[in-house]
Amino acid sequence: MTRERVTLYDTTLRDGAQTTGVDFSLDDKRQIAAMLDDLGIDYVEGGYPGANPLDTEFFAQRPKLRARFCAFGMTRRQGRSVENDPGVAALLGSSADAVTFVAKSWDYQVKVALRSTEEDNLAAITQSVRAAVAREKEAAVDCEHFFDGFKDNPQYALACAVAAYEAGARWVVLCDTNGGTLPHEVERIVAEVAKVIPGDHIGVHCHDDTGQAVANSLAALRAGARQIQGTLNGLGERCGNANLTTIIPTLLLKDEYASRFEISVTREKLSHLTRISHALDELLNRAPNRHAPYVGASAFATKAGIHASAVLTDPRTYEHVAPETVGNQRRVLVSDQAGRSNIISELTRLGVTLDKDDPRLTRLLDEVKEKESQGYAYEGADASFFLLAKRVLGEAPHYFDIERYSVAVDRRFARNGFEDKGAEAIVKINVHGETRISAAEGNGPVNALDVALRKDLGAYQKFVDDVRLVDYRVRVFQGGTDAVTRVLVECADGEGNRWSTVGVSANVIDASFEAIVDAINYKLLVSGAR
Amino acid sequence: MTRERVTLYDTTLRDGAQTTGVDFSLDDKRQIAAMLDDLGIDYVEGGYPGANPLDTEFFAQRPKLRARFCAFGMTRRQGRSVENDPGVAALLGSSADAVTFVAKSWDYQVKVALRSTEEDNLAAITQSVRAAVAREKEAAVDCEHFFDGFKDNPQYALACAVAAYEAGARWVVLCDTNGGTLPHEVERIVAEVAKVIPGDHIGVHCHDDTGQAVANSLAALRAGARQIQGTLNGLGERCGNANLTTIIPTLLLKDEYASRFEISVTREKLSHLTRISHALDELLNRAPNRHAPYVGASAFATKAGIHASAVLTDPRTYEHVAPETVGNQRRVLVSDQAGRSNIISELTRLGVTLDKDDPRLTRLLDEVKEKESQGYAYEGADASFFLLAKRVLGEAPHYFDIERYSVAVDRRFARNGFEDKGAEAIVKINVHGETRISAAEGNGPVNALDVALRKDLGAYQKFVDDVRLVDYRVRVFQGGTDAVTRVLVECADGEGNRWSTVGVSANVIDASFEAIVDAINYKLLVSGAR
Repeated sequence: MTRERVTLYDTTLRDGAQTTGVDFSLDDKRQIAAMLDDLGIDYVEGGYPGANPLDTEFFAQRPKLRARFCAFGMTRRQGRSVENDPGVAALLGSSADAVTFVAKSWDYQVKVALRSTEEDNLAAITQSVRAAVAREKEAAVDCEHFFDGFKDNPQYALACAVAAYEAGARWVVLCDTNGGTLPHEVERIVAEVAKVIPGDHIGVHCHDDTGQAVANSLAALRAGARQIQGTLNGLGERCGNANLTTIIPTLLLKDEYASRFEISVTREKLSHLTRISHALDELLNRAPNRHAPYVGASAFATKAGIHASAVLTDPRTYEHVAPETVGNQRRVLVSDQAGRSNIISELTRLGVTLDKDDPRLTRLLDEVKEKESQGYAYEGADASFFLLAKRVLGEAPHYFDIERYSVAVDRRFARNGFEDKGAEAIVKINVHGETRISAAEGNGPVNALDVALRKDLGAYQKFVDDVRLVDYRVRVFQGGTDAVTRVLVECADGEGNRWSTVGVSANVIDASFEAIVDAINYKLLVSGAR
Repeated sequence: MTRERVTLYDTTLRDGAQTTGVDFSLDDKRQIAAMLDDLGIDYVEGGYPGANPLDTEFFAQRPKLRARFCAFGMTRRQGRSVENDPGVAALLGSSADAVTFVAKSWDYQVKVALRSTEEDNLAAITQSVRAAVAREKEAAVDCEHFFDGFKDNPQYALACAVAAYEAGARWVVLCDTNGGTLPHEVERIVAEVAKVIPGDHIGVHCHDDTGQAVANSLAALRAGARQIQGTLNGLGERCGNANLTTIIPTLLLKDEYASRFEISVTREKLSHLTRISHALDELLNRAPNRHAPYVGASAFATKAGIHASAVLTDPRTYEHVAPETVGNQRRVLVSDQAGRSNIISELTRLGVTLDKDDPRLTRLLDEVKEKESQGYAYEGADASFFLLAKRVLGEAPHYFDIERYSVAVDRRFARNGFEDKGAEAIVKINVHGETRISAAEGNGPVNALDVALRKDLGAYQKFVDDVRLVDYRVRVFQGGTDAVTRVLVECADGEGNRWSTVGVSANVIDASFEAIVDAINYKLLVSGAR
């Protein structure tokens, strides 16, 4: 059976730029376009040339892409001819292969927002599309508020879509602009549109305001649409756009879709999806969503004891797809329900091979249980777990001893408030018989201790020069500050590696220092320091 | 037209406990149960009594809830009679009103995972439900892997569901255990089940592994199910469970659902949803998801530009529901209108009446904005917000000044490890012209500072003698320890009052001290100290 082609249209660089906290640089845009192209996306929407200097500069030279490169912008304004509209001119004169015009398709919006007439809006669609086609650009029309418009006035919404199609638009894209439409409504309305416009000219653009952008996109596909617009990692205004990082694996791995449709992303590329998703977050300095479908660090993680042994016996019990298909991996969390099989599977993931009958496994299990009873938690601290395992296995060199550390914070009220002198720390270590003492100031006690510890590690110094602390979290258990404090620290190095360690103590300073010392030891161990 | 009742079943305390990085304490569980009850959830599943000491302790005394309190656990094991199964005995003997048995419903799982027979599994369901009913507990059965089972062997999956129903289970819950089922499959399969079991006995339990847990739950509702299981904020194993924080507003605000169904959460309670969602994240020390539907900080945020002015002209353009309905607010960079009404509503909630034209409101708004730009967050720190408001209103007496504080931690390596001498603090305050200096030791620096501060407050001492610090949380923003640290402190007094305060600084010690000072000032203020 011939499978039908479904086209993927990415708007990370345009609608994704509306994400709170996301501010693309020119270089970000270039890198993201290259990522999308590498993944195999059909259309890469680059932005709105003419609307802002960044996008104008990005479009000044067409990036080298296999994908179609699209410019987004408005249809000609009311009261202007298409030839005399500078906005349209910027689109048509850009380096884009295709132009995506956004147009109102809700009569209410035409009147209230545009203060225009229904007829002029239709004419603007027709003329703008024709102008693009005349300039040999492929044209598409994003019908803004299509679903709300259709519910209010189906005739007019359809008239806008048909005007776009008849003027020669390759794609008529039905947009759920405010994101409130429900999947069964999308399915019903797309089916209506597919009666008058061929499905392989219909696209859909959904937002996640009811948590159903993915379901809405797939409902549109089922009803006949053949283009899906979305963004990587679901970036986008408010709650985000339809998440292509979720939709792509669903189309490739769920038989219902895979047997009927083909997309330009290959199974081979799919196995890079987790890496690409994380690379984008890294680029934008966002914490990746651990719980993201398919690509999240926890997407194939199992915590409970009975679930853990079941998933190892038969992955189908708790895995709807195989994690390798999307470049992710199974994680059986080491937790207080830790069992032998959990630990073996975690060690394997971290690259440590250990036979299940090795007597050292029992020692490691006992050690983990003892630590967890003290409040340690290794599920967020891979590096501490790795270090612990390597020590029990006798495979971790002893690099240095701590002889002393101290930290002090002193605040005295001066005329203009407290004098701000941060914190001071002293760390004394012994590296193979040689004592080294360092002092440092920091914004706070943990920062001061971190700087002091990494100031002079003798022969090991070169391994830790590029280490930096990137995240720091504290949780207190069983009541107030009298109780146990657990500190999780995340470090990074110059090559982009990240690792997490844990420290536990009644004293937040001791717990923090322990986690930092673990982080340094881990870095030395994986760097092969001797 | 009479609307049909849809029942909400929350499993935050059981399936939500499987979330990576989430580790409930007993007190967390109690607080979350109270939150769920306050919101108006019908069923609160508390955990698995008998399976671990925490859950056993939580169930030892029934929490005071209006909601039905449920215990979760397995049906009787293979080869045991229901009377002789200690797991079942723990469930039936618990303080729960209802017991939710989990049972296999996929013949493949019965054979592979349970190594049991189809017949024995059916008998286990029947006998376990009957035993619960005989003990006057309401019974439910979670049919594990129901959708995968149904696709594989519909007769057997249905037989399990029918066995549960016929034995007297109030609810037969169809579980998409590995989360891979698609909405149209859920709709079709639930419709099949509804032919043999009345819809108002059918529940659904979905996971978000394809990003469609919400759509799946609503698809089940459309096909006839009348109970939805989920968790607050979509907590849960792997990608999480169906997010009740998304489903509840959709059921109440989308006419398609609101006109057909009624739920126990009122419109009034819905307006607290954002606060409840954030309070849960605060409690668990998780960063709230800015992009969460309805309750995310960005859910109604518009970046400045054409969208911003459009949303101010006509909110319908970019808002599918009104943000106030869920207690959220529109965030448009050009307007502080939302801020103003939000602050009034927060003040009202805390018992402070202020007219919207009072000029002090502008000062308070400016102060809050300034503080929030520095990293303060008042959502989890009511007492600090109350104090700030009372100060701006000129209604908070000035009790004391801090002249100095210092804290030191010093560790030296002795023969048997570090000598543990905790931390030492000195606090010097001025109470109406009289200087008082106190020193204290503590397990850690925060504890030492807390004890020293409350050692001698002169005439105010009697108000703070029974104050104790009960929770302490730290989060660092923008990278490592160089960034801003936010500390949340919760205190309690002898009468069972609890209050939360916040401190922010680059230095964790300063931030902690600030929060403690706020906590003491709050206590003095509400005690009527002069």
